[in-house]
Amino acid sequence: MLRKPKSASKKRPPDRILRKMSNGRSPVPTKSLRLAVLSSGGDSPGMNACIRAVVRSATFRGWEVFGVKRGYQGLVEGDLIPLPLRSVGNIIQRGGTILGSSRSADFRTSEGRRSAFHELSALGISNLIVLGGDGTLKGASLFSKEFPVRVVGIPCTIDNDIPETELALGFDSAVETAVECVDKIRDTADSHGRVFVIEVMGKVSGHLALETSLAVGAEFALIPEKKFALSKLVSKIRAGIDRGKKGSIVIVAEGKKPGLSQIIAEQLQKHLPTEVRHLVLGHLQRGGSPSRLDRNLGSRYGDFAVELLSLKKNRVVTVWRNGGLGYVDFAKIEGKRKKPELETLSLIDRLSI
Amino acid sequence: MLRKPKSASKKRPPDRILRKMSNGRSPVPTKSLRLAVLSSGGDSPGMNACIRAVVRSATFRGWEVFGVKRGYQGLVEGDLIPLPLRSVGNIIQRGGTILGSSRSADFRTSEGRRSAFHELSALGISNLIVLGGDGTLKGASLFSKEFPVRVVGIPCTIDNDIPETELALGFDSAVETAVECVDKIRDTADSHGRVFVIEVMGKVSGHLALETSLAVGAEFALIPEKKFALSKLVSKIRAGIDRGKKGSIVIVAEGKKPGLSQIIAEQLQKHLPTEVRHLVLGHLQRGGSPSRLDRNLGSRYGDFAVELLSLKKNRVVTVWRNGGLGYVDFAKIEGKRKKPELETLSLIDRLSI
Amino acid sequence: MLRKPKSASKKRPPDRILRKMSNGRSPVPTKSLRLAVLSSGGDSPGMNACIRAVVRSATFRGWEVFGVKRGYQGLVEGDLIPLPLRSVGNIIQRGGTILGSSRSADFRTSEGRRSAFHELSALGISNLIVLGGDGTLKGASLFSKEFPVRVVGIPCTIDNDIPETELALGFDSAVETAVECVDKIRDTADSHGRVFVIEVMGKVSGHLALETSLAVGAEFALIPEKKFALSKLVSKIRAGIDRGKKGSIVIVAEGKKPGLSQIIAEQLQKHLPTEVRHLVLGHLQRGGSPSRLDRNLGSRYGDFAVELLSLKKNRVVTVWRNGGLGYVDFAKIEGKRKKPELETLSLIDRLSI
Amino acid sequence: MLRKPKSASKKRPPDRILRKMSNGRSPVPTKSLRLAVLSSGGDSPGMNACIRAVVRSATFRGWEVFGVKRGYQGLVEGDLIPLPLRSVGNIIQRGGTILGSSRSADFRTSEGRRSAFHELSALGISNLIVLGGDGTLKGASLFSKEFPVRVVGIPCTIDNDIPETELALGFDSAVETAVECVDKIRDTADSHGRVFVIEVMGKVSGHLALETSLAVGAEFALIPEKKFALSKLVSKIRAGIDRGKKGSIVIVAEGKKPGLSQIIAEQLQKHLPTEVRHLVLGHLQRGGSPSRLDRNLGSRYGDFAVELLSLKKNRVVTVWRNGGLGYVDFAKIEGKRKKPELETLSLIDRLSI
Repeated sequence: MLRKPKSASKKRPPDRILRKMSNGRSPVPTKSLRLAVLSSGGDSPGMNACIRAVVRSATFRGWEVFGVKRGYQGLVEGDLIPLPLRSVGNIIQRGGTILGSSRSADFRTSEGRRSAFHELSALGISNLIVLGGDGTLKGASLFSKEFPVRVVGIPCTIDNDIPETELALGFDSAVETAVECVDKIRDTADSHGRVFVIEVMGKVSGHLALETSLAVGAEFALIPEKKFALSKLVSKIRAGIDRGKKGSIVIVAEGKKPGLSQIIAEQLQKHLPTEVRHLVLGHLQRGGSPSRLDRNLGSRYGDFAVELLSLKKNRVVTVWRNGGLGYVDFAKIEGKRKKPELETLSLIDRLSI
Repeated sequence: MLRKPKSASKKRPPDRILRKMSNGRSPVPTKSLRLAVLSSGGDSPGMNACIRAVVRSATFRGWEVFGVKRGYQGLVEGDLIPLPLRSVGNIIQRGGTILGSSRSADFRTSEGRRSAFHELSALGISNLIVLGGDGTLKGASLFSKEFPVRVVGIPCTIDNDIPETELALGFDSAVETAVECVDKIRDTADSHGRVFVIEVMGKVSGHLALETSLAVGAEFALIPEKKFALSKLVSKIRAGIDRGKKGSIVIVAEGKKPGLSQIIAEQLQKHLPTEVRHLVLGHLQRGGSPSRLDRNLGSRYGDFAVELLSLKKNRVVTVWRNGGLGYVDFAKIEGKRKKPELETLSLIDRLSI
Repeated sequence: MLRKPKSASKKRPPDRILRKMSNGRSPVPTKSLRLAVLSSGGDSPGMNACIRAVVRSATFRGWEVFGVKRGYQGLVEGDLIPLPLRSVGNIIQRGGTILGSSRSADFRTSEGRRSAFHELSALGISNLIVLGGDGTLKGASLFSKEFPVRVVGIPCTIDNDIPETELALGFDSAVETAVECVDKIRDTADSHGRVFVIEVMGKVSGHLALETSLAVGAEFALIPEKKFALSKLVSKIRAGIDRGKKGSIVIVAEGKKPGLSQIIAEQLQKHLPTEVRHLVLGHLQRGGSPSRLDRNLGSRYGDFAVELLSLKKNRVVTVWRNGGLGYVDFAKIEGKRKKPELETLSLIDRLSI
Repeated sequence: MLRKPKSASKKRPPDRILRKMSNGRSPVPTKSLRLAVLSSGGDSPGMNACIRAVVRSATFRGWEVFGVKRGYQGLVEGDLIPLPLRSVGNIIQRGGTILGSSRSADFRTSEGRRSAFHELSALGISNLIVLGGDGTLKGASLFSKEFPVRVVGIPCTIDNDIPETELALGFDSAVETAVECVDKIRDTADSHGRVFVIEVMGKVSGHLALETSLAVGAEFALIPEKKFALSKLVSKIRAGIDRGKKGSIVIVAEGKKPGLSQIIAEQLQKHLPTEVRHLVLGHLQRGGSPSRLDRNLGSRYGDFAVELLSLKKNRVVTVWRNGGLGYVDFAKIEGKRKKPELETLSLIDRLSI
């Protein structure tokens, strides 16, 4: 929801065009094509809805689907299982990923990737769908350069910092969870007249912190993309107290150094008469039943990724833009990070006066 | 999320351009301009976040804000109250609308609208922001043609059928609520091996039914925009039972005649061995704490509507497109209804095999 | 929570005593005893937590557990499956029942019950735990009189009308769900100044209606146990409107005739100036993740039922009284229905002035 | 829910008896008696429902109610406001306390308490209802010994360690919130095969940790009342991993030293091959909309406290026992702490094999 891609619509062959490319014909089973799907890196809500869509859409086309357990590590080790239709029943509403995930050191080595290729080849699989964030997609890109495997990526990260797409899978749910948590804290903050500094995920990206701040009516948001002056934060909160505000909420993206919210809270305490507390939401933000938006985005991404493979697309990532599906080349997103609109900081400020 | 506007991005002056139009300068108080805000028609989640944003943004610019109680009826009767900063504290997370709403017969008469204008004039108010669906926006259009009042509309309807915008305020929350309800029914449906026909809102529009169906993994969606054959529905459910599905979910948009879900359930019962039950979600879908997306959309719409007024825009409605804010003339949306992508029906079918 | 059992504590051998009866020794595997568990009648939240506890506790004692699918009907038909430890993993938080449920006409015949006994005998099972409401427990009683099968019942019904226990499994969750729904309706009721008549489950018992009414601050509760005068209801709501109440909520237990809430709403509409709407919550109340209380009650009931069987208890039902576990003979509850405290009606009235 | 009071029912005059004591007559306005109500210490969910009940029940009897802001500190400073009927409208579902709370150093001095008495006397108030935990009730006891003020206490603490009552207000909601959080973490734990050590509140009491552990199916619970051996914890988790468990959950009551969950996590990490993470739920547990049980318990406690005052009871605290209301003298609870049933630890162990 945060950025406004400028010329997005021009270059992307939209869903509709793709369908024309496939002649609108009902899908022709491509003589039992075999497909593998995996999720890697931090899990994000909606992955199960997406895996379900991959399995169902591919099966619908007459393909066979295999699931890779534990992300790239499972690929390296050949930990694949068949995913028949029923294996993805009743998972659309579940958090996490039924395939499991991990961060794989082995896959970062060329031996690891060679092993992965051999495992796929052994099963006759030459199509791969990967769900994950920038690290995962980078790995996919490298792998598909080195070996003759067709790869489509699906952007999944609660950080929402993948370029070229308005939405990465899991972001909406993560904001929703953070907002529910802060709503609860607000009760206590108001009852005691306290300041709460609440830390949300975001080592290098402030999207989650910004959207959470806006949704809870926070007094202030601190994000990695923008320096801030403690004095400004103090004076904002003081002004609120003077105007009769009962409690105050400050949202902090975690940043690179651990303990940021605690540091901010301690510094604030030195300058404020009211009690200051801090809370780290941590892994809460990854879990829980995905929001309807993520379930639907995941379903659409998964189905579309299968369609892209059926059209022989390779080295592309699905994106959501302008209210519809699209895709871009791996090259367009590599080494880039989507920045949030800093104007949102002003909006948060304006709305919490 | 449902449609892909084709040439949307060309014509709209985006948020950023608008900001340039105002020279990026911090807002100049326009000598105590007075502004009124009202919500009319069915309430939708996020209205309070939007009203809060209108009040805070306008106050930030040095304007005075009045709230009209009970929609157009309160405007006709001169039921306005000042809305100071604190009056909108702690409402961002609340469902409904603190201003109240109604459907006004009086405002449909020219005497009624004349009375409304006199009430505004008496308070020196010449700027009006209206929150509502197509009926409300139509009323706003008529009013602003007849009288020298500057009007900006904000699309609010859980039907999501306002043209030119990807999202009307309240839609996301309504789908979320419907999805939570169906998730609960799924437990019972699976335990008893039952078919449940669940009716969601949508007299003439199927957006809500479609997105709900996709998110819950429904076996079938019935929408006003597309005829359906009972036989196809029966055979889909039978096939599911044969493949070992425990329960089945059919989502029905209410349509124009009351009792549709009950009729469908009775017809299905004649052709199926399993128990068939129906449930009408009704007003549940309007209530509850708004989703984070609606809180943020409402906040952005409200703030942007104030900015549009500050730029002397008139007879326009705020829209969300291509991941950002925009606006279109009333003329662009009048007499039109946004249609859902019927391709979503195929997707729902494909994913529930 | 509703009634105050008078002499409850005297007769029950409490948990602690039971433990003493078993000499506090760690359980001795009774040479591979075999146990079956089933859920019958309407499903209620917490059944899965309870089934999990039965399986885990029995396995812990070295017993073998079988699950009967689809309640008594599955028993008649011999539809039993082994339930190893892992079969109940990750179900504690799920609504419904993994075993399925049904209402069985066959089990009401002596041939049906004979068949059930043969199926159990064939597998060498002579111990049975049944989860369900009064109908289910009555069936269990009959069955255990006729055949040499040791039976322990666990009271599960969202109606909470089983005598001798403060809590039947599922009641707390059902009230919680009803309360969440009414909270949402309250938003809309207040925004439009409407009266909402909301129907909760309860054909013959008002426990659910009463606790829901109290928890949402309803203006009025209508229950099967107490006649009411429409005039009193009308004057209560009128008085509220006169004092400035925005919306009003009336909770109705469904009663024996369908459509009660609609009838009440129509009658009310004749006497009130404000809009009156109705809503039937229906099966929503059975579903959803069980409350923590039901998860824990189900866990304790399930574990305790296994302990009772290990102590050779027969024809007893687990109960919750005085903050602890107990059990009573089937004879104590048969043909009886727990009545709610009518004083709660006065309390609801007093608190909604 | 955890302990089984042995002889509880004998000494308490139950609700019903009380009502008989007041002759069942409709309440006689005691010539405009004045009553004050305050909440002190940590806030707990349900306090607002309780305050609402106090106001409504007292007003129903013709009394006047004043609210003390910020707990005892507001009493010392004379920060009281009238609480008319409407002041408690629409708060039953809100977390926190509309009166605010604090920990007051002044009230611990005899000057402070003298000042509090003068403030009450100045307003003609000689009846006081206090909501809070053991510290608050201790203060109330002291105050009512020193000055001629009639005091009734209502046990409110998410620790649930007040003796003589099965339930303190707020406990059920706090467990519910903790359970929801852990359910979310479980998704991520299972996806990554991780061990999560989750810290819940409880400096000296393990009730919250125990009920949470049971409800989430935790592998282990660590509570202040029971020493534990790290080796036992390690072997339990190892055994689970060996049997194919994907993730493991350990619940830790915070205890007296900060950072306990982190320490446990670090120690575990040394002995386990899988990743171990920790999370502190902190103030999340105090907030949020109260559960239906706490809303109803709060409503009943508040109403009953008013009734006790009307019967000239003094220096008593309301309790919930044996499925009904009762009261005990302050003396019965002072200096004592309710212990959890340690048998629950065995149950948790048995059910998580």
